[in-house]
Amino acid sequence: MAHGRVMIETFESQVLRGNAAGDPPVRTVPVYLPPGYDAEPTRRFPSAYVLTGFTGRGRMLLNDNPWNPALDDRMNALIARRECGEMILVMPDCFTRYGGSQYVNSSATGRYEDHLIGELVPHIDRRYRTLGAREHRGVIGKSSGGYGAMVNAMRHPDVFGAVACHSGDMEFDYCYRGDVPKALTQIQKAGGLEAWLQAFDAKRQKSSDDMMTLNIVAMSACYSPNPAAPCGIDLPADPASGAWRDEVWQRWLDQDPLRLLERHAAALRSMALVYLDCGTRDEWSLHHGARLFAQKLRALGIAHEHEEFDDGHMNVQYRYDVSLPKLARALGADLPA
Amino acid sequence: MAHGRVMIETFESQVLRGNAAGDPPVRTVPVYLPPGYDAEPTRRFPSAYVLTGFTGRGRMLLNDNPWNPALDDRMNALIARRECGEMILVMPDCFTRYGGSQYVNSSATGRYEDHLIGELVPHIDRRYRTLGAREHRGVIGKSSGGYGAMVNAMRHPDVFGAVACHSGDMEFDYCYRGDVPKALTQIQKAGGLEAWLQAFDAKRQKSSDDMMTLNIVAMSACYSPNPAAPCGIDLPADPASGAWRDEVWQRWLDQDPLRLLERHAAALRSMALVYLDCGTRDEWSLHHGARLFAQKLRALGIAHEHEEFDDGHMNVQYRYDVSLPKLARALGADLPA
Amino acid sequence: MAHGRVMIETFESQVLRGNAAGDPPVRTVPVYLPPGYDAEPTRRFPSAYVLTGFTGRGRMLLNDNPWNPALDDRMNALIARRECGEMILVMPDCFTRYGGSQYVNSSATGRYEDHLIGELVPHIDRRYRTLGAREHRGVIGKSSGGYGAMVNAMRHPDVFGAVACHSGDMEFDYCYRGDVPKALTQIQKAGGLEAWLQAFDAKRQKSSDDMMTLNIVAMSACYSPNPAAPCGIDLPADPASGAWRDEVWQRWLDQDPLRLLERHAAALRSMALVYLDCGTRDEWSLHHGARLFAQKLRALGIAHEHEEFDDGHMNVQYRYDVSLPKLARALGADLPA
Amino acid sequence: MAHGRVMIETFESQVLRGNAAGDPPVRTVPVYLPPGYDAEPTRRFPSAYVLTGFTGRGRMLLNDNPWNPALDDRMNALIARRECGEMILVMPDCFTRYGGSQYVNSSATGRYEDHLIGELVPHIDRRYRTLGAREHRGVIGKSSGGYGAMVNAMRHPDVFGAVACHSGDMEFDYCYRGDVPKALTQIQKAGGLEAWLQAFDAKRQKSSDDMMTLNIVAMSACYSPNPAAPCGIDLPADPASGAWRDEVWQRWLDQDPLRLLERHAAALRSMALVYLDCGTRDEWSLHHGARLFAQKLRALGIAHEHEEFDDGHMNVQYRYDVSLPKLARALGADLPA
Repeated sequence: MAHGRVMIETFESQVLRGNAAGDPPVRTVPVYLPPGYDAEPTRRFPSAYVLTGFTGRGRMLLNDNPWNPALDDRMNALIARRECGEMILVMPDCFTRYGGSQYVNSSATGRYEDHLIGELVPHIDRRYRTLGAREHRGVIGKSSGGYGAMVNAMRHPDVFGAVACHSGDMEFDYCYRGDVPKALTQIQKAGGLEAWLQAFDAKRQKSSDDMMTLNIVAMSACYSPNPAAPCGIDLPADPASGAWRDEVWQRWLDQDPLRLLERHAAALRSMALVYLDCGTRDEWSLHHGARLFAQKLRALGIAHEHEEFDDGHMNVQYRYDVSLPKLARALGADLPA
Repeated sequence: MAHGRVMIETFESQVLRGNAAGDPPVRTVPVYLPPGYDAEPTRRFPSAYVLTGFTGRGRMLLNDNPWNPALDDRMNALIARRECGEMILVMPDCFTRYGGSQYVNSSATGRYEDHLIGELVPHIDRRYRTLGAREHRGVIGKSSGGYGAMVNAMRHPDVFGAVACHSGDMEFDYCYRGDVPKALTQIQKAGGLEAWLQAFDAKRQKSSDDMMTLNIVAMSACYSPNPAAPCGIDLPADPASGAWRDEVWQRWLDQDPLRLLERHAAALRSMALVYLDCGTRDEWSLHHGARLFAQKLRALGIAHEHEEFDDGHMNVQYRYDVSLPKLARALGADLPA
Repeated sequence: MAHGRVMIETFESQVLRGNAAGDPPVRTVPVYLPPGYDAEPTRRFPSAYVLTGFTGRGRMLLNDNPWNPALDDRMNALIARRECGEMILVMPDCFTRYGGSQYVNSSATGRYEDHLIGELVPHIDRRYRTLGAREHRGVIGKSSGGYGAMVNAMRHPDVFGAVACHSGDMEFDYCYRGDVPKALTQIQKAGGLEAWLQAFDAKRQKSSDDMMTLNIVAMSACYSPNPAAPCGIDLPADPASGAWRDEVWQRWLDQDPLRLLERHAAALRSMALVYLDCGTRDEWSLHHGARLFAQKLRALGIAHEHEEFDDGHMNVQYRYDVSLPKLARALGADLPA
Repeated sequence: MAHGRVMIETFESQVLRGNAAGDPPVRTVPVYLPPGYDAEPTRRFPSAYVLTGFTGRGRMLLNDNPWNPALDDRMNALIARRECGEMILVMPDCFTRYGGSQYVNSSATGRYEDHLIGELVPHIDRRYRTLGAREHRGVIGKSSGGYGAMVNAMRHPDVFGAVACHSGDMEFDYCYRGDVPKALTQIQKAGGLEAWLQAFDAKRQKSSDDMMTLNIVAMSACYSPNPAAPCGIDLPADPASGAWRDEVWQRWLDQDPLRLLERHAAALRSMALVYLDCGTRDEWSLHHGARLFAQKLRALGIAHEHEEFDDGHMNVQYRYDVSLPKLARALGADLPA
């Protein structure tokens, strides 16, 4: 059977121009076109935006690995086995110098939500034969990408009609808070946030402490930006005294999907699919968040699928074999002939 | 120069009889007697209670290690070098099936604070030639023992006149909270708290996850006992739903030295020595707690010594070389002749 | 400045057809063409074969990572900075079910050396505007790819005129031997080699023990194949008794670059560049091997460059920034205009 | 039931006086006396010498741990349950600055075998009511202590009539050799052996690399001393060039129990008990050595017991619950009345 193919879009963002983090406005966005795209040159297809996790960007979904197929290889195989309908996959690049943007707007990073929703979606719809209605457009991702998928689905039901969230950031008290004092130690040792960032950039090998700290810095940049603060970022603990800052933490919690849920219940209720899963040994305890999220969905009578699997957080791309077929079905994608 | 010697006291506690955890009321308490004790058979000496950390009991302070001398060897060397005055060291056993008692009373573990203050101190004063006034009695410990030292000094200024706290549990939001969701995962996997405890007891080798979980279980037993709950213990997260329990956590915070401090300012002010230190790479972030504690002491005008050293949490017994001489001086111990 | 581009060659090997390991004869081989290739449509260029390490295949050299550029991005940057001459980079796929082939022939894996030398080189020379003489063709690689580069340069001086070896497998007594008893334990636990391989293939997450064992199995497949043995592989220790097999180990040693060197001194002496380096904290102790190799080169009066850097074995692709310019110069590649 | 008690012998060795490593000739040797010793003041008892592992000395067998009883507590419990006959346990101190002596003579450490056999055994027989014949004297140990037990039993069948070896050092090619190049790296980085030792002594916290290196240095001191070399020690690899030294390694192999066995078959055949066991996940692969040793015993028709258990190398003192009763029986120890 014919394979799909990947187009590499080079997109120059207007909204990311002059972003505070100094990241490039020109982004590389791979687009997977299913086998039928070339075979039937006038047919239109559903599309799904696949959001990578922290420290990732769209291109990395195509990274080759002998035991963990690239997204295009995976999708080709799913379609060839007739397990998944044919749809277009778009792989945005919302990477920042902090390792990511959580796919939301922030004065410290840039307007990544605006970029995704306001720029990239229309661009893709213009360039490719997509089915342009929200019923045929989905969003899916893992980890920070799962967060981005869920939050953007909540806030943009006019754009997305189905969502799948793998091991997504939720219940911030569980998944982030424990690392804050540890990140604080690293930042203090470096002599402050700016000094820490410079040292991080200069390091050839990033240690696990480096990556843990980067995560807290990045989440601060996304959830508690403050143009008046160093690097435009408020940390949840005072880097000088070490004291916890309840008011900063509250800003984080305001963006926790668990707390956003009620306000966006109607949006979620309108989805053809709300899918979430998590490994029961997730190192960031995200399985607890997923359960609590599913409990709330249940309490609100919102249809959803919640799955668990016996694994941790890393290298679980095989879960796309479960979610992509569901998403394709929800978006009305046809199985190959 | 003559060495001191160690007496092994076997003490039958009344207050620990029938304790909820089922631990033995008979305890083994080593007592170090300095060289002068035998040399001058009528002389009386200051005494210090040395509280071991989590999973420890008094006897373990005497454990031999070629690169980390036992407490008696360490004290002998300090006295021989005339760096430390001669005093009696008492090594209580407040161990429980949960790994420790934090040296406080709890319906889930037992009345360890009562045991220490009401039973052991009078017993030692009867059996040995101590100087019985609080000016000549101190308390010192590391980690959970540092917690026990600080809290018992705060609450019993009539008993203790000086305190030293190494890497003591403080700022519970930093040192414990991050492990709660992880412990929850382990407990759920085991099928609940009782099942987890049975499995733990049966394991020949305890993993790092086991010890992390035991710590959270033990702290729950000490800070949030609840006779109506399984094992008589409320966890800070609901073992069924995984949801955080603010009201349980509040009970923990009520026993955080950082929050107890103001109420007990007068007691601390009355101490001849308030000493605390912590390694700046403490794996439980206790250096942040120590700094915040010292800040509060400073704000309240309470004299104290706060030191930091470049190390982590484990194997820092060498810090006793700093604190024991200070404590001896504060308690009026004389250098050997 | 214009960027180079990557062509993806799909090559159907004749010599790999029906290989014993059951791996596909059709291989995906990316080929990097420098900016000048399109700019000057008749010009011919030197070529270098870039051999990936264990568990890798050519495509993986192009994997994206924000802090570790893909090989094409790296080469584009080197050329743009005029640090490196323009040459074609070929990225062979010599992967096997065992994780690799060491780029040599083996009855247990396949004729990968024949594939590389006899099939791929002529194919590339036919398809692209290469400079076909050995003076303009080099071979370079890291780890197992460094081994493959050095061994193929030694054995095929008619094909390659320059070689660069990063952290290459050498002094097998140091780099492999210590893992043999550990691999043995894993294989025995699984119930033998075939059972171990099946279990390995079935595992979603490969542990560090899995990868360590795979390495020993793969090296056995490459260095001590035996059609009469299970899986066609002799291990250096008897999987039944656990006893060391000197005669098998001798077969390994016969393929140690350190022992091949003398025999192939003339080939190495004919190279325009013999470059090798290694991190001084290499986890497989390969820095010792590199030093011993350089000592022998020195003793034989063979010109070479031997460098060391302060790092371990993993994520050291930045060393290509040092070696590619040297290799390009040795192969007569011109800097961009 | 009455407990046994521990006497602390302070023994001044003649043979260790002026030892090359500069270690003290005065040694602290705990002696466990079973309950019957005091109950029946004229009765004589079998004795067993319990040899601790690397980095240990006799006192450490008495270290307290809530989940791993001290040797005296363990023995008391075994006797109380009438599982083990009453015997005297002697805990020699053959520690050196290198972490141990392997209980053999070496010009680099001292005459520890002579100390044990020629000094300590007679001293104990004089001081305590032992049964002085070899039929009533055994030797037992774990890891390096298991090595010491087996080797001393082989060489001194006139002294010992039974032996038990837990996870003992055997098949040196498996248990030590893999660490030699890694230790070499550490020693070279420090600037040579003497510099490494000084740096080691000065370190408050010893890393896992430190302990791995110390092990290789210590084994070199025990197996390949050379008064003409730095520190009086030949390493199996040249610290300057990094080259393997076959002739040094041969000296190690000459002291491998697997190779000593044949020569001492008669001694082993004369033992009332030859017991050996090992965990099947031993991190130093000692289970392979134990199996090969048992195979040779079998081939030579030497009666023995070889057991395996599902565990690693550390914290397996619970195996004494299996071996001590067997050893007591072999030595003719009576169960308590």
